[in-house]
Order: sequence, then C-alpha cells, then structure tokens
Amino acid sequence: MKNFDINEDPHRRFNPLINEWVLVSPHRAKRPWQGQNEVISAETLPKHDPDCYLCPGNVRANGVNNPAYKNSFVFDNDFAALKQDEIIFEEDIKHTFFKAEPEQGISRVVCFSPRHDLTLPEMEVSDIENIVKTWQKEYAELGSIKYINHVQIFENKGSVMGCSNPHPHGQIWAQSSLPTQVEKTHNSLKSYYEKNKRTLLEDYVQAELRVGSRIVIENDHFVALVPFWAIWPYETMIVSKRAISKITDFNAEEVTAYAKILKQLTIKYDNLFSTSFPYSSGIHQAPTDGLDHPEWHFHMHFYPPLLRSATVKKFMVGYEMMGESQRDITPEKSAEIIRQQSDIHYKNEVN
Amino acid sequence: MKNFDINEDPHRRFNPLINEWVLVSPHRAKRPWQGQNEVISAETLPKHDPDCYLCPGNVRANGVNNPAYKNSFVFDNDFAALKQDEIIFEEDIKHTFFKAEPEQGISRVVCFSPRHDLTLPEMEVSDIENIVKTWQKEYAELGSIKYINHVQIFENKGSVMGCSNPHPHGQIWAQSSLPTQVEKTHNSLKSYYEKNKRTLLEDYVQAELRVGSRIVIENDHFVALVPFWAIWPYETMIVSKRAISKITDFNAEEVTAYAKILKQLTIKYDNLFSTSFPYSSGIHQAPTDGLDHPEWHFHMHFYPPLLRSATVKKFMVGYEMMGESQRDITPEKSAEIIRQQSDIHYKNEVN
Ligand SMILES: O=P(O)(O)O[C@H]1O[C@H](CO)[C@@H](O)[C@H](O)[C@H]1O
Ligand SMILES: O=P(O)(O)O[C@H]1O[C@H](CO)[C@@H](O)[C@H](O)[C@H]1O
Repeated sequence: MKNFDINEDPHRRFNPLINEWVLVSPHRAKRPWQGQNEVISAETLPKHDPDCYLCPGNVRANGVNNPAYKNSFVFDNDFAALKQDEIIFEEDIKHTFFKAEPEQGISRVVCFSPRHDLTLPEMEVSDIENIVKTWQKEYAELGSIKYINHVQIFENKGSVMGCSNPHPHGQIWAQSSLPTQVEKTHNSLKSYYEKNKRTLLEDYVQAELRVGSRIVIENDHFVALVPFWAIWPYETMIVSKRAISKITDFNAEEVTAYAKILKQLTIKYDNLFSTSFPYSSGIHQAPTDGLDHPEWHFHMHFYPPLLRSATVKKFMVGYEMMGESQRDITPEKSAEIIRQQSDIHYKNEVN
Repeated sequence: MKNFDINEDPHRRFNPLINEWVLVSPHRAKRPWQGQNEVISAETLPKHDPDCYLCPGNVRANGVNNPAYKNSFVFDNDFAALKQDEIIFEEDIKHTFFKAEPEQGISRVVCFSPRHDLTLPEMEVSDIENIVKTWQKEYAELGSIKYINHVQIFENKGSVMGCSNPHPHGQIWAQSSLPTQVEKTHNSLKSYYEKNKRTLLEDYVQAELRVGSRIVIENDHFVALVPFWAIWPYETMIVSKRAISKITDFNAEEVTAYAKILKQLTIKYDNLFSTSFPYSSGIHQAPTDGLDHPEWHFHMHFYPPLLRSATVKKFMVGYEMMGESQRDITPEKSAEIIRQQSDIHYKNEVN
C-alpha cells in the first residue's frame, strides 16, 4: 500500500468539457517500440508547385483556375462532405434502431498562404492575422445563413493526419446540426454557466494559471496549455482569458495576440522533434443559431499524433476504441517539454 | 428540392448504443486520393521466429522464457498500462477541474497460437474454440478478483493498428472502473431493458434480420452485420441472437458457432483487399461487479481502418475529432461488399 502519486501511478482523469475520462499510465512511456514508424518527408518544397491544386493560378479538379491570390484564399471544397441541396424529409418516429436525417451544409477549403512551402510557424504574425480575419469573415458569413447552426474551422496538418497536400490550408465544415463533440461541450458549458454565471473555461484558465505546471505559453489575452485531461501526448488548447464566445468578438489586440500565440505554439511544436509537426487542430466556439451564447468560451484544440519522436506516434486503437482514451506520459511532463522548446524555429537557428 | 435518399444524400445516423451521431457522405467515396499510403508487409512469416518474444520457448523482456505452449498462452504484460498495487487515496472534492483517481488493474497478453505465421482466418475452427475458451477462463478468473469490475478483451491486428508483433495475439485489460465507452453502452442497454424487458441488441438483431441489407453472416447462434450507425468503412459487429450477457454463459454449441463466425468474417475481411486485413476488435459484455446484468448483451466490435484498398485508410482526423465521426460509404454498400467475398481464404484459392 502506498499513497497516490499522480506522477507515477496509473490513474484516470476527468474531462469536464465532454464528461469523459482518460486513463493515464505515467510509467508506460518507458516500454520499447518495435512497431510502425511514420515516414517523414524531408524534401524541400518549392515556393510554387505547378502540380498543386491549391497554389495561385493553378487549375483545380473542377476545371476552375485559382486566382493569383496574395493572402489567404477560400473556395468551396470540390469533394465536399456536405451539400447545400435542400432535402424533403418526413421523420419516421418508429425507427428506434434506424434513426437518420438529412444534413445540409457547406464544406470550404482555406488556403493559408500563396506560398506552397510555408506553414504557420514560418509565417509572419501579420500573415497569421490575415488568416484569423479570414476565419472571422467565414464564421460570420456562413453563420448568417439561415440553416447553418454550426461552423467548424479545422486544420489537418501532415500526411499522418490524412492531409493530402502540403500546401498550408485548413477547412471549414458548416452545417445545420451541432456535431456530437460540440454538443457534449455545449451541454457542459451551459450547465456550468447556469450554475456559476461565469464560463467554465474562464474559471479553468484562472485555476491553471494559479497552478502553472501545465501552462505552455501565456500572453495578455490568451493561454496555451496542456489540459489536465489531455488525451494525446502533446495535446494543447489555446484559450482566451476573457470570456469571448466567438472569433468575431475579438478586438484588434486580441487578433494580434491570437496570431502571436499560434505562431509561438507551432514553433515550439516544430522544434520538439525538429520536424514539421503534424496535428489536427480545430476551433470550438458558439453555435450560429442566432441565439446569445454567454456560456460559450472560445478555444482551439491541437491533437498531435506523435509520441516519442518524429516517426513514432501514439496509436489510439483497441483499448482506446473499446474502453477509453489512454496516455503514456503525464500532461504536466508534456507541458514542461513543450514549454522548454526555443521560440526560434529550428530552421532559423544560428549556431 | 428533392426527397431524401439515404443512399445518395449526406445525412446523420444515430447510434443508440452510445447515444452519438455519425455523419454519412455517400457521394464522397468518389474523390481522388493523393495522400498517405500504408505500407503492407508482403513478407512470408516463418512458423517460428527466434526473435519473437511471443513464440514458444523464446525469452521475453523480463528475462522469463515462454513455455512450449501448444494452444493459446496468457501472461501478464511486461509493459502493463495498469498495475495491481493498491493505492491509498483520499478524494479532494474541491477539484472541479482537477478530478483524478488512481486506477487498479491487470494487463495481459493472449497468444492465439504457437504458430508465428497464422492469423484467425487461417486457423482451424477448433483452434479458435480454444481461444474462446481462454477468453472465458480469463473473464471468469479476472472478473472474480474483488476490485476488478470490468474485463476488456481486445485485439490490435496489423502495424497500422499499432500492433508491434505479427505473432497472432490479443490483450486483456481488467480494471476497477467501467471505461468511458463501456459506461455509455451500459447506460443505453440499461434504460432500454428497464423500459422493454428485452435487451436492446436482442431487438436490434431481429430488426436487422428482417431488413437483411446490413447482414454479412448469419448462423444458428450469431449474426455478423454492419451496424446502421457504423463509423469505420468496413466496421462490423458480431452479436449473439440469444440475450447472453457474458462469454462464460455460452453453451458448447455457441462456442463453436462463435468460433465459426469469427473465422468466416476474418476470411471475408482478408479477401476484401487480398491482404491480412488490419483491425482493432473488442468484446463488450457484462461488468464483473458481482451483480446480475440482464440488460447486457454480448457483442464484439471490429473497427478496420482501410477504406479503398490494402494501402488507403480512412483518416479520422480534424472534422471527426472536433465534430463527429464521418464516413464516405454507406453501411449497406459496405455490408454488400463484405458479404460477397468468398468463404475460402484467398491464399487457399485454387484457380
Ligand atoms: O500494448 P501494445 O500492443 O504495445 O500497444 C498498442 O495497444 C495499446 C492498447 O490499445 C495502445 O495503448 C498502444 O498505443 C498500442 O500501440
Ligand atoms: O478533406 P480531405 O482533406 O481530403 O480529407 C481529410 O479530412 C477530412 C476531414 O477531417 C477527413 O474526413 C478525411 O478522412 C481526411 O483524409
């Protein structure tokens, strides 16, 4: 019998944002790895690739030419998962087991830069500000469409995350329903707000700042931290300090502060394994259902797959799929490792 | 405006087992793929590999030699995610954001065969019966330990599923808490049973048998089907026809029928892309908390990652992580494709 040591003993942590648990096995990072290694492309990319369907001036799958865009560039996905067609549908309430309903929406692609070879950490803060402004514009525009109640902004970075083109870009899927993960978050935020009259993340960020051990970066308006309940080895979350429910409520200072923390975090990520660090990221913010959402608090998740090196990832498989998410390193340890990375991108390091 | 066509139009389907939705984009399977391809090992494996730590007689990481086992062989994982140590812990109820508790458990490895080169579809039915009996024994033995309330039996097959050794084997993680996914299922099964006095899956299987289009294999005691709400392209579920709450309640006929359907399903899987088909599988059954669980109904999930070919998988990334699971082919189409596969393993096909 020994006393519980959260840094050493297997334990579960609770995620109040989605009401789920994660299994933490701190000791397990030591096991040897004889499994699959990811292939890391070391090739140097050209500034413009004539074969890339995202580069300015090139032709896309639908035969249309991209404009000679100078900042970010948005277009409707040529292979959209969602469609705008209005569908007539009468619900069959007898279907306990076969419940389905049509879903209307719009899928867009957001090119972050005309440069084929630049990713977020290598862009200027002013370039990233432009991306943030594009996200604001899209959230406002898509959100104002009557049937669109949710706008999901996200990025898949790196081939290991299913990204099929290295040209820096993200996506937006806007739709009529609240997606499952967002609905879970929505319910938690709502019940916390009703009880406390403050947002859950407002109080959480303050609690994290007091503890300090999971903070990666802090500036005047945003915090990047490894959540207490993170599931991916180097998962982080960027949260606004102020209770801002949506990106269109950022003031000019906040746009800059957000662009800065995005650059700083992705630089640290790249430096971690001296590689263009893969991840999926996504913004969670208020639904666009026309209602007020004081309970919502802007945050952005980063889910990077890597665990030990540029080529060894964490597999979320059997136990994780059937049981629950499991991690092999504590969030505190991960935060320390990311925090300690230099703020200068490894490619620009002068020795 | 057109009428809803579930085979063509984007829609959401509801999963009553875990109360979550999945987005289905039937038209999207047509998009071209320029992304990552998986590496498929075409190497022929030896019957015994002197370097394999799972083969009979070989030495493991902890220095112990495996016995010269003849059927299946079970041992405690040398790099266990769970530990048996009893931990003293006083819950701090003030922790809204930092809720954690120690978790006690046992992780085991189950070798399916002494043969390094055989997977389930290539084994004899009698060999698979032996594995089923091993699972029964482990479920009973681990489940009888006072603090063990859940026994998760699973298999990660293929390097793409994080499996680091091709020697046929599965794992068992037994622990004190109900893992998140199991708890969700538990709640759904319980409320359905309380209302209907039958298990949810008893009624679901009958409904599926009446419809027919998602059935892959049926024998006297089990059905293999693609659930109406499946998220992975070729996901299936094996369900017992009778309301059996746990594997130790199988009678002799059911053990054989289960072994047979396991062989038949994995043969069809291998034939699909003429490859050793990767997946994570896992059994969901009654908790081992000493209580009666008439609401529980034995089922086994198969989550295979492949989508288009032996090398192109479905990436569950950005939208799927931030929003909800999304699939590019309907469950009905997938069921048809798997069902049509031959019952003779492609390696044994005589032309
Ligand atoms: O225990 P193994 O086979 O080394 O590890 C594999 O299965 C585990 C349980 O699903 C996962 O946590 C690991 O990420 C995976 O690589
Ligand atoms: O739309 P893309 O980039 O072709 O596709 C990628 O992102 C989508 C959204 O997360 C996923 O559904 C796909 O599996 C993935 O390959």
